[in-house]
Amino acid sequence: MRQTILIAALLAGPAAAYEPLVEKQEFTLTGFQTRGGEVIPEMRLGYETYGTLNGARDNAILIPHFFSGSSHAAGKYSPDDAAPGYWDAIIGSGRPIDTDRYFVVSVDSPVNLGAKDPNVITTGPATINPAMGKPWGMDFPILTIGDFVDTQKGLMDQLGIEKWHAVMGASMGGLQSYEWAARYPDRLDRVIPVIASGWADADLIAWLDIWAAPIRLDPNWNGGDYYGGAAPDAGLAQALKILTLHANSPEWSNGTFGRAWAEAGADPGQGWENDYNIVNVLNGAGASRASVSDANHFLYLVRANQMFVAGQPEGSLYQGLLDIDVPVMLIHTDEDLVFPGDAVRETGAIIRSDGTPVEIVELQGTRGHLDGVVNIAQAGERIRAFLDAE
Amino acid sequence: MRQTILIAALLAGPAAAYEPLVEKQEFTLTGFQTRGGEVIPEMRLGYETYGTLNGARDNAILIPHFFSGSSHAAGKYSPDDAAPGYWDAIIGSGRPIDTDRYFVVSVDSPVNLGAKDPNVITTGPATINPAMGKPWGMDFPILTIGDFVDTQKGLMDQLGIEKWHAVMGASMGGLQSYEWAARYPDRLDRVIPVIASGWADADLIAWLDIWAAPIRLDPNWNGGDYYGGAAPDAGLAQALKILTLHANSPEWSNGTFGRAWAEAGADPGQGWENDYNIVNVLNGAGASRASVSDANHFLYLVRANQMFVAGQPEGSLYQGLLDIDVPVMLIHTDEDLVFPGDAVRETGAIIRSDGTPVEIVELQGTRGHLDGVVNIAQAGERIRAFLDAE
Repeated sequence: MRQTILIAALLAGPAAAYEPLVEKQEFTLTGFQTRGGEVIPEMRLGYETYGTLNGARDNAILIPHFFSGSSHAAGKYSPDDAAPGYWDAIIGSGRPIDTDRYFVVSVDSPVNLGAKDPNVITTGPATINPAMGKPWGMDFPILTIGDFVDTQKGLMDQLGIEKWHAVMGASMGGLQSYEWAARYPDRLDRVIPVIASGWADADLIAWLDIWAAPIRLDPNWNGGDYYGGAAPDAGLAQALKILTLHANSPEWSNGTFGRAWAEAGADPGQGWENDYNIVNVLNGAGASRASVSDANHFLYLVRANQMFVAGQPEGSLYQGLLDIDVPVMLIHTDEDLVFPGDAVRETGAIIRSDGTPVEIVELQGTRGHLDGVVNIAQAGERIRAFLDAE
Repeated sequence: MRQTILIAALLAGPAAAYEPLVEKQEFTLTGFQTRGGEVIPEMRLGYETYGTLNGARDNAILIPHFFSGSSHAAGKYSPDDAAPGYWDAIIGSGRPIDTDRYFVVSVDSPVNLGAKDPNVITTGPATINPAMGKPWGMDFPILTIGDFVDTQKGLMDQLGIEKWHAVMGASMGGLQSYEWAARYPDRLDRVIPVIASGWADADLIAWLDIWAAPIRLDPNWNGGDYYGGAAPDAGLAQALKILTLHANSPEWSNGTFGRAWAEAGADPGQGWENDYNIVNVLNGAGASRASVSDANHFLYLVRANQMFVAGQPEGSLYQGLLDIDVPVMLIHTDEDLVFPGDAVRETGAIIRSDGTPVEIVELQGTRGHLDGVVNIAQAGERIRAFLDAE
């Protein structure tokens, strides 16, 4: 069977780095306490693992995911999959995060965007509230990035892992990485926040609200009470469109699309039904993604990101970062519109100010924020050395 | 009477530079031909003038306005006005655009955003279509920046002006400035496009569509047919919010708002009705501006800006810029998210490539795109020298 799969993978082209097929697993936390003081009776989440946990249980690396992502960080579910997980370029046998050496754990967040995606297992407003026998909707407790981390800590305990060898994540996964290091300094050995800074600043808070606005305007949203009826997919598609453009760069949009019309001969000056190619493509991508996503989950993710301050200290943006004492590698790009270079450098300077070692790796590319996902391989050997250091 | 006004102005604080009170005037073009081949039976628009047209009629300077602006470029309508026109800092007696010397003409665009503003006179989808006896709605012809320029050319002819001494405008006003120089090279002596580049690139096209999306999602928009009923003000307010944030800079939003909550004690983590101060302020500003604006006009402005290529040449982004032969001064800032520095410099390089003189002036500030409006005085003496050169 294993051989058949390998042959099929070879026939399909270059094998994914993590060669065994990946299976989604799930875990459940009962009576999950949120940091806001509420209780979620049953928190059911998905996760994936790559590699093998060693006898000492000390070779585990945690990968929390980004806003629109899932636990599918590497490998393929089936030999026919068009693409492997998002960080497959650096996770696998012989790769920088070497699955011959490390046991990689990637976890679906609560309120995961892909609530209707068969490869995502999550708990959020689209989940049945056991007390009511219908979906929670906007009655689901507001969660923080700290709550996401606490679900991962629950899995960690179930797996019998005392300390992560490292925590590494991109964007919202980077926020979770900071949170781990600030809040649970004894439960990890090092941390690699990628394309993320130590708090959500006013500019990000406002842009996240702008991402969310189309959902609230869609009449189908209905205050979040749409389960069983028509979903606010038009608003959600527009929200996803903004996210897509914001996470890219002008160099990408101009270089890819230029001023081309969506259809030859259909001049946008001659009819409102005519449009530009870039608008058409972004609309299509937003609509496609909306079909496996949930609009309320999007709103919960927005709020969690807006509320983020590493370690969630009272009244200080910095204390949580000063509480970080494990070695830090920050990976980012200066073309990032979501977490600009200045904010990442300032974060690094604060962590370093009390002697904590901080390495900063700058990526080059044309994808803006997304370079942290699609061009992560540039940092591969730096990551390998950082992980393998004694 | 004049003395009473001056005293009142003195009592009210520093006098505006253009001291005589400003009066909105209006002009009408009948049978206006659009570049798209349609006819608008009656194009009625407002304008303002500052200074006096000389006997040779050769001291006139045209100021077209930006996306959310109007012809109110300088002075006050009444001594009690809280603020003068947007470029009052550089227009007035003794100021860089010296009204003792020049006759300044500023014109309301067609499809002007402020259709319900008593100080704006415009013609667009909110105007009664004489053939139907009701507002045009989305049946109003799609207009281009070139059409805006052609309305100004109509006024120019009515005023008996053969040549503008200069055309100068910010943002969408800068696009109109390029268009004047590319299309009517014999009708102006020099041009000053501010915070604008020579074409709308894919990135701007997509962002403009994102600005417009909330309007289309508002159920009150109803395909543009809302006159006489409830207007899509919620969507329009969100559209104006995006525009406001996009036209500013992270330095401004972070420095002004930080992570403050909208209301002390109202934790955004404890209820969906609670929000951050920056979101609250942007929502308020959007709603306030929406009350004097028209949603369909917003959509027409978006399309006009998306379609912009200087001189509207067939199949070339550059030919219109190469057709510019009068001296050019480009004023911009590198922190501009709407018309980035690279695009302005590229525009300048193309114009200069066939020997046309181009000066580039860079503004410093923390307001991003808006520095071209609020910090224009930094370029004052450069503008004065450019205008006064023989």
